[in-house]
Amino acid sequence: MTVLILTCEEDLTADMVVSRLHELGVPLVRLDPADLPGEVSLSAEYVKGDFEGYLKAGERVVSLSSLRSVWVRRPGTPAAHAPEQSAWLTAEAEHALYGMLTCTPARWMNHPVAAAQARCKPWQFRTAHHAGFAVPPTVITSFPSVARRFAVSYQDIVVKSVSGGHPTDPPMVLPTTRISPDVDFSGVAAAPTLFQRHISKQADIRLTCVGGQLFAARRKSDPEEVDSRFTEHGMWEPTEVPDRIRLAVEAYMRTAQLSYGAFDFAEDTDRTWWFLECNQGGQFGFVQLDTDQPITEAVASWLADAPSI
Amino acid sequence: MTVLILTCEEDLTADMVVSRLHELGVPLVRLDPADLPGEVSLSAEYVKGDFEGYLKAGERVVSLSSLRSVWVRRPGTPAAHAPEQSAWLTAEAEHALYGMLTCTPARWMNHPVAAAQARCKPWQFRTAHHAGFAVPPTVITSFPSVARRFAVSYQDIVVKSVSGGHPTDPPMVLPTTRISPDVDFSGVAAAPTLFQRHISKQADIRLTCVGGQLFAARRKSDPEEVDSRFTEHGMWEPTEVPDRIRLAVEAYMRTAQLSYGAFDFAEDTDRTWWFLECNQGGQFGFVQLDTDQPITEAVASWLADAPSI
Repeated sequence: MTVLILTCEEDLTADMVVSRLHELGVPLVRLDPADLPGEVSLSAEYVKGDFEGYLKAGERVVSLSSLRSVWVRRPGTPAAHAPEQSAWLTAEAEHALYGMLTCTPARWMNHPVAAAQARCKPWQFRTAHHAGFAVPPTVITSFPSVARRFAVSYQDIVVKSVSGGHPTDPPMVLPTTRISPDVDFSGVAAAPTLFQRHISKQADIRLTCVGGQLFAARRKSDPEEVDSRFTEHGMWEPTEVPDRIRLAVEAYMRTAQLSYGAFDFAEDTDRTWWFLECNQGGQFGFVQLDTDQPITEAVASWLADAPSI
Repeated sequence: MTVLILTCEEDLTADMVVSRLHELGVPLVRLDPADLPGEVSLSAEYVKGDFEGYLKAGERVVSLSSLRSVWVRRPGTPAAHAPEQSAWLTAEAEHALYGMLTCTPARWMNHPVAAAQARCKPWQFRTAHHAGFAVPPTVITSFPSVARRFAVSYQDIVVKSVSGGHPTDPPMVLPTTRISPDVDFSGVAAAPTLFQRHISKQADIRLTCVGGQLFAARRKSDPEEVDSRFTEHGMWEPTEVPDRIRLAVEAYMRTAQLSYGAFDFAEDTDRTWWFLECNQGGQFGFVQLDTDQPITEAVASWLADAPSI
C-alpha cells in the first residue's frame, strides 16, 4: 500500500514527511500534477462495473487500488509544465487526475471537495461559531454605510481579505490592517470587504490538527501588532490545549470533513483564544522548528495508516 | 420566504421558471454574480454566535434568513461586469457571495460543492456503475499503448473530452468522434484522453431529474451517428422510465447529493439504456418544447417548497 504525495518540486515540508515515511519503510510516490502530461502519465479503465488504474511518475508506477492515502500538499496546476499549455489542457488533465483519484478508496489529507469548502472564510466563521469557538464580531459588506456603522460600534477594527489571499501570491496581497472609524468607507462599494473587531492580543496561537492529534504553539506578541506575518518575533513555544478548544476543534474538523487543519487564534489578556481562521493547507514546518513538536511524524503516521474505507 | 436565482441576464429557461414562480405568487430575486460589485451588493454579519445578512439586486433587498432556496442556473463570473476587473476582485466577490449563501439554511439546486464533484466525468462513471447503470467500457489514458490496446479490443470506439467542455465554450470544443483502431495513437501522450466503446444506438434518451420527479424523453437516431449535438433530428417524445433506471437514478442523485440532473443515455437495439453522462446543470427547455413535459413546473415547485432544514 502506497502513499501518494501531490506537491511541487521544491517543498521542504514534503521532504521532511518523505524522509519520515522512508524511515517507516512505507512506499510512496511523489509527483507534481504540473508534470501531467510529461513526466507524469496515467490510465484508468472503467470496465464491467469495476475500475482499475495506475499512475506513472518518472520510472515509478503505482496502481490506484494500492493507494492507501493521498496528501494534497502544494500541487502545481495540472499541465502547467506541458510544452503546449492551454486552459483546456489544464481542465482535461485536472479532471482526469483528480477524477480517477476520487474513485479510489484512499483516504485524503484533505479531500479536494472538503478543501474547497473549507477555504471559504464566511463559511469558516459560521462553522467556527457552531463548533463553539469565540469568533470576533465580523462583517463582510459592500455597503459603505454598514461598514461605517460597524466601525462606530466596535471602534477598534481591522480590514482583511475575504478570500484569504496569502502574501506569497503577489496578485492577492492584502495585509490585515487596523483602521479608525473616521476613515472614508466609500471604497467598500467597489468590492465586498471584511471588517473584524480588533483583538488586543498578548499572544498568537497556532494549533495544528493532524487526524485526531492536536499541537498547540504560543508566541508572545505586542498587543498593538495587527498582522504577525510582517514582523519579527520571538520563538513559538508548545502550549496546552484547553478542553473547550479541543472539543471545538474536533467539532470543526468533523463538520468540515478535514483530516488536517492549521488554526490561528489571537489570545487576549483574559486568555481567551479568538478564532481567526483555519487554513486547511497551512504550513507546519516553522512551528515544528521552534517547538520540536512531532508534527511531521504525525502527518507521516496518518498517511501511513491503513485506508479507512 | 424567497427564491434566489443566480443566472445571467439572457436566460430563457430562467425566464420560464420565473414566470411560473410569479403565477405561484412566490417572491423571488434574480441576480447575476457578475454584477457584484455594482448592481448587486451584499452584507453579512457574524456577531454573538449568530449570522445575519442580506443581498440587494437593483432595488430588491432580500434577507438571507428568508431564503427558501437557491437556484444556481447559469451565473456569470463574480465581478465580471465590474469597472476594474481582476482575478483578486473575482476571488473576493466569489468567496463573499457563495460563502454567505452556504451559511443559510436554504436548499440548493445544486449546492456548489456537490456540483463541483458531479462535473467530474471519471467520478461520474464510477458513481454510475455503483448506482446500477450500464456504462460503456471506458478508458482515460495518456499512454498510447493503452489507447491502442483498448481500440483493438473494442474495435468500434469514440474519443471525447474528459472535462466535458461544451461546444458553446469556444476554447473547449471537442465533439465526440468515432475512430478506427488503426489510427496513430501517439498524440495521446500529449493529454489524458477518454476513449469509450461506441454504442450503436437506435435512440437518444434524455432523462431530467428534478428532486424526486423523473422526465424521460426519447428521440430516434441513426445508429451510425455519434455526436447528436451536431446534426438535425426528429422530435423528442415522452417515454416511460424503466424501474431499473429509476432505482439507479435515485441512487446516483443520492450519492451525488444533487437535486437536479440531466442524464444522457444511448438506447441500443436491445433497448438497453447506456449511461453517457449526468450534467448537473443541463438544459431542459428543448425537451419541454418537444414533449410538453412539465419540467419548468417541477423546477419552480421544487424551488418554492419549504426549506428542508
